[in-house]
Amino acid sequence: MTTKKRIPMRKVSSAVHLTLAVHRESPQPMHRQIYDGYRAAIVSRTLRPGQRVPSSRGLAVELGISRIPVLTAYAQLLAEGYLETRVGFGTTVSRSLPDPPVSAERAKSHSRSTIAAGFIAEHRNLPESMLHPPWGRGWGAFGVGQVAFEQFPFKAWNSLITRHCRGGNVKSLDYGDPMGLQALREAIAAYLGPARGVRCDADQIMIVSGSQQALDICTRALIRRGSRVWMEEPGYRFARQVFALNDCRIVPIPVDREGLDITAGVDLRLDARAVLVTPSHQYPLGFTMSASRRLKLLDWAERAQSWIFEDDYDSEYRYENMPISSLQGLDPNGRVIYIGTFSKVLFPSLRLGYIVIPRGLVKHFQAIRVAMDIGPPTLLQAVLGDFIREDHFSRHIRRMRLLYSERRTALLESLHSAFGPDLEVTGQHAGMHLCIFMNRIHDLVIARRAASSKLWLVPLSSSYAGESARHGFILGYGSTSAEQMNNAVGKLQTAIYGQPKHETRDRE
Amino acid sequence: MTTKKRIPMRKVSSAVHLTLAVHRESPQPMHRQIYDGYRAAIVSRTLRPGQRVPSSRGLAVELGISRIPVLTAYAQLLAEGYLETRVGFGTTVSRSLPDPPVSAERAKSHSRSTIAAGFIAEHRNLPESMLHPPWGRGWGAFGVGQVAFEQFPFKAWNSLITRHCRGGNVKSLDYGDPMGLQALREAIAAYLGPARGVRCDADQIMIVSGSQQALDICTRALIRRGSRVWMEEPGYRFARQVFALNDCRIVPIPVDREGLDITAGVDLRLDARAVLVTPSHQYPLGFTMSASRRLKLLDWAERAQSWIFEDDYDSEYRYENMPISSLQGLDPNGRVIYIGTFSKVLFPSLRLGYIVIPRGLVKHFQAIRVAMDIGPPTLLQAVLGDFIREDHFSRHIRRMRLLYSERRTALLESLHSAFGPDLEVTGQHAGMHLCIFMNRIHDLVIARRAASSKLWLVPLSSSYAGESARHGFILGYGSTSAEQMNNAVGKLQTAIYGQPKHETRDRE
Repeated sequence: MTTKKRIPMRKVSSAVHLTLAVHRESPQPMHRQIYDGYRAAIVSRTLRPGQRVPSSRGLAVELGISRIPVLTAYAQLLAEGYLETRVGFGTTVSRSLPDPPVSAERAKSHSRSTIAAGFIAEHRNLPESMLHPPWGRGWGAFGVGQVAFEQFPFKAWNSLITRHCRGGNVKSLDYGDPMGLQALREAIAAYLGPARGVRCDADQIMIVSGSQQALDICTRALIRRGSRVWMEEPGYRFARQVFALNDCRIVPIPVDREGLDITAGVDLRLDARAVLVTPSHQYPLGFTMSASRRLKLLDWAERAQSWIFEDDYDSEYRYENMPISSLQGLDPNGRVIYIGTFSKVLFPSLRLGYIVIPRGLVKHFQAIRVAMDIGPPTLLQAVLGDFIREDHFSRHIRRMRLLYSERRTALLESLHSAFGPDLEVTGQHAGMHLCIFMNRIHDLVIARRAASSKLWLVPLSSSYAGESARHGFILGYGSTSAEQMNNAVGKLQTAIYGQPKHETRDRE
Repeated sequence: MTTKKRIPMRKVSSAVHLTLAVHRESPQPMHRQIYDGYRAAIVSRTLRPGQRVPSSRGLAVELGISRIPVLTAYAQLLAEGYLETRVGFGTTVSRSLPDPPVSAERAKSHSRSTIAAGFIAEHRNLPESMLHPPWGRGWGAFGVGQVAFEQFPFKAWNSLITRHCRGGNVKSLDYGDPMGLQALREAIAAYLGPARGVRCDADQIMIVSGSQQALDICTRALIRRGSRVWMEEPGYRFARQVFALNDCRIVPIPVDREGLDITAGVDLRLDARAVLVTPSHQYPLGFTMSASRRLKLLDWAERAQSWIFEDDYDSEYRYENMPISSLQGLDPNGRVIYIGTFSKVLFPSLRLGYIVIPRGLVKHFQAIRVAMDIGPPTLLQAVLGDFIREDHFSRHIRRMRLLYSERRTALLESLHSAFGPDLEVTGQHAGMHLCIFMNRIHDLVIARRAASSKLWLVPLSSSYAGESARHGFILGYGSTSAEQMNNAVGKLQTAIYGQPKHETRDRE
């Protein structure tokens, strides 16, 4: 039933004619409907400041409803200041309400021009268009950073979650330590020493949501706006975004088989406040930084009083040697900030990683972090701490190292049989991706075309900031089984040449 | 057993004398110990570039161990570039290693001076010392922002977690939507309309880790460095930190019983790019912004082409009226960015909140967010989405509203019986805290003293940026039962006067 009445005024002095619709069947309670109707009329100036509104009794009669919802609505409108009560005048629209605002129509065009005219904070080099490149949208071969999820030890993980949910004390709901859960930080410190050659204790470890946030925190803590940062060329595209967001000037420094060419950097005579490196497995090319370059880089940082951000994103998976020890462990001067993530060894939607902070900077980092987001969530930190301590973590890494090694070998074999032995491949000794180089193709064009048939090729040229980009593809093999690899490489051939060059057959 | 030998050199041309200790009982495998010993000697220049190392066979014999760990260590040292093999010379320390680095001793003093001399990014007004004020350390009366955790519906929550762990598809481990899980965003949009009068759909909602991160994202998206921001005076201390981190200039604008005094702001003739307000329940004073001020504020924002950040942190709990409708719902111009959090209605360590973004700004916000931390974690978003959709959320809010109302009434009664009817109290109509004002005391001094006896009093003066701070306390009552209230107020009296002024008795 709808009660809809034009409410006549009884006093000439204040002629309120408000058409009010009250629907009994509405999910909105009646008092809310009355409140909304009056508020809208007052805001739009249909009812003018000083105008009287009907008495609650009168309005209830007019609407044919009980007086209670009317009283509730009026009380709310009075409490919020839309109405006021004056002795001798009854209830009127507040006289303190301002003049009509700018009309919505004019406002709308304003808003548009405001945004266009830059009344927002613009960050050069932070393009919206690169948010969702077509090759980053899907799951399967050859998506980069994709993990063999089906191999994840769900049972162990879920039972730890259940344990923490059941046994969790009430205090675990409160704000935690902004540096992260102590138990997790101790587990990570205990892991990092033997496994990664990182020298630290738990007090230096800050839990973050992944390497992207780690890099953001490091940049905000250590690099002033407008300062220069050295980046590997080619390098990690998302790192460029975080530097752009923080208004840093990025200086691309070439990478060769020994890693970042520090001498080339020095020769540019462009001092930098920091350098971002991936010494264990250079992203994307996959080279390991040589001992000589490591020592030179540490020496440069100390002389230039600059910082080294070491992003050690996937070094747990190394197929021919022991994992390469971290740069941080070589650094006597506290110039290296070490960044680790669980996105590659566990799974990305966990959103957990860590920073190992030089001792003297811990408080400074913490002040930045608290201002940013107070701290990380608690439950999954507690679960991860136990997962590491109870050896599920190292067991999982060992299993995955074998699995990815097998997938990698299958990919290399398929690539060589499809493209011949001269195909230039780099980065096959570690991690979950490798690079292939191709002359006389345009990798962006091919990647776009391949994406439309659900093959996810990250074009190598997109990892270059400068002009002299090489073309090719970064091929992730984490989510493709060895059995499917030949088929996937066949699709890759088709994407590049229009059709497979050789006969390919699945290994199955 | 420890095998410790001085290894004699067989060839005069390269006299390597390396004292190497290999412990069979060490948790480090032997190859790692050999690797570490050689690497340390090479890095410290105990072994010089070009010097020969013993043959693997010779070293194994010297150490009295099998040759395999020696071969493994040498392979690693070769792979990383510490050693090289030259025809006719055997294995030597790489000649490409740079000159000795700056000595560690000199370096240490460097690091200290570097940090002191500001070779970090400094953010004015972001003090490390305010990270852990003594009154922010503990749990219990009268901590602000503390929730009645023991009332949380753990059973429903945990069973949803279990459901998502068991039934979770493998894809939920992958990176999610940077805006947040679609199901959660839809649940929030459906809640915000009727409950908060917010006009939006799910596409405009970005899931964040709480209101602190929300404010950081808004600031990075919309306010250029050095621009002015209006803040309520007194206002939310942690918001000052996020503005300081982003190098904004904060202009304190006085608050009275109607909320932010917009006219006073305009009279200052200090234009601002944005204003942060808490219109539903001003933090800390607890006033509701009047209708007239709301309309004036919206009008100002449109004329000045500025943005309004509406932090609606605890408006679900309102004791005398309906919850106050949001400012966002009144805004025809897309100038309001609405910020909500689950820290108060659920629990802080969940680290989930949201931003309602004006339609035209969604892509811009998203680009900022992706550069910052890629996106939020998935599992707890999925659980929260179901928690809202299956009505646990609104049921919990209804229960808590009753509970907090009871605690608030107990607190008011105790306060009046302890301090007399003239005690000035504000903010008691909503939320989980109220303010009391006290003349002739120094609230910081008392708060420090009280903290040492585990009474957590947030001094009101700490919420002021300017000189004219009033003294008093912000008293949170969320975590104190009605039965304990009298006792807690007795402690408050003691903290202020040295002893209770009147006899107080627990209600039990």
